[in-house]
Amino acid sequence: MAGRQLDFYFDYLSPYAYFSWRWVQPMCKKYGLTLNAHPVVFGKLLDHWGQLGPAEVPPKKTALYKYCYRYAQLNGFDFDPPRSHPYNPLPALRLSLPDIAGDAQHQVISAIFEAGWSRGIDLASEADLANVLNSLGLNSGAMLSAIKTPEVKDQLQQETTHAITRGVFGVPTFILDEELFWGNDQQEHLEIYLQGNDPLDQQKVEEMLARHRGIDRKTFALRNKEKRVQEK
Amino acid sequence: MAGRQLDFYFDYLSPYAYFSWRWVQPMCKKYGLTLNAHPVVFGKLLDHWGQLGPAEVPPKKTALYKYCYRYAQLNGFDFDPPRSHPYNPLPALRLSLPDIAGDAQHQVISAIFEAGWSRGIDLASEADLANVLNSLGLNSGAMLSAIKTPEVKDQLQQETTHAITRGVFGVPTFILDEELFWGNDQQEHLEIYLQGNDPLDQQKVEEMLARHRGIDRKTFALRNKEKRVQEK
Repeated sequence: MAGRQLDFYFDYLSPYAYFSWRWVQPMCKKYGLTLNAHPVVFGKLLDHWGQLGPAEVPPKKTALYKYCYRYAQLNGFDFDPPRSHPYNPLPALRLSLPDIAGDAQHQVISAIFEAGWSRGIDLASEADLANVLNSLGLNSGAMLSAIKTPEVKDQLQQETTHAITRGVFGVPTFILDEELFWGNDQQEHLEIYLQGNDPLDQQKVEEMLARHRGIDRKTFALRNKEKRVQEK
Repeated sequence: MAGRQLDFYFDYLSPYAYFSWRWVQPMCKKYGLTLNAHPVVFGKLLDHWGQLGPAEVPPKKTALYKYCYRYAQLNGFDFDPPRSHPYNPLPALRLSLPDIAGDAQHQVISAIFEAGWSRGIDLASEADLANVLNSLGLNSGAMLSAIKTPEVKDQLQQETTHAITRGVFGVPTFILDEELFWGNDQQEHLEIYLQGNDPLDQQKVEEMLARHRGIDRKTFALRNKEKRVQEK
């Protein structure tokens, strides 16, 4: 029996996902939850929902890095982002699939996040990733070969597609009892939920969400039209 | 002498801006800051930076409304969003310009936010807005006439353009000593900054931001190309 499950969706591109990964592990221990870690391709989520990533809006990247630096200092660890960013996260994500990382999955995720966002390694470099795996006593050569198979590439794609069908639009995302929490700033609410003190009135919020849209921006209407055309 | 200034950028479209407005007023009193409230057109910020608003990604709107409902409950006030959303915020924003609201500017902003996001009025309706102004003892008829002049329309546009030149990409944004803080989740850092305990190392963050970009998503590159074409 696996007990109560918490699904955690992440991409190494996101420092917020790193911070949430540091937070979610002790939290799951505290509340006796099984933590299911799901690597997903953030770029595909953005493409699907038609969004830009935070690092794609220059002043937002500045605000984000400052936030991260302060957050890490205030929480007693180092912030030192990947040597280049954005970068290709696919090898790192594939190495973190359960079929590749096996029983060491959580350690692999912790080690990659920590090396990338607290020690500034190049998270796109297979050599740098091999060092991380070796430091855990894992067979980096075998793992880096294994991620080149179509089956493994397909698995990561399936994780991402499945996340989208569950309504995941960003990282980090937590899903517990089909309730979705997004981002670091909802961690507090997730914990209150776990304590059985969730103040949410689902029915009221459903009613609020059903209120009609007044106007939509032209660009939004256009984008939706383009999407419909693409889907045809 | 106006003393130390805090610039606050908002649009009534954003419930986060409402929450931050509730927070920033006592905070400015506590630290002896002059609070300059700047209505800006969020849609124009999004257009400029090529972003979608949170309410334009359906599962994000759901997550956002749930967050807001919980936040309001936990902070002891009601969350009841505008009758329709998104909606045309221009009349409400123009009514909030210093030239229109005068000495009552902060009361006008508080009253509109509260009516829209805690009592669910229609924030696009001039009749509903008139009720809000009348409840403050203001001359709603004169104010609603005044906002129809080209000069006033121009003022709101100028506020928005000026915000963009300062790097404002979303609401709420706080700027203090040219340091930009964005969103509710940076309020904590803003207060630490005000206490003189900012852990930020500006030089280190500059160095991190100067690290090169690895790859960019195709859609991002394409959008930038389109933008350059439009600008020609």
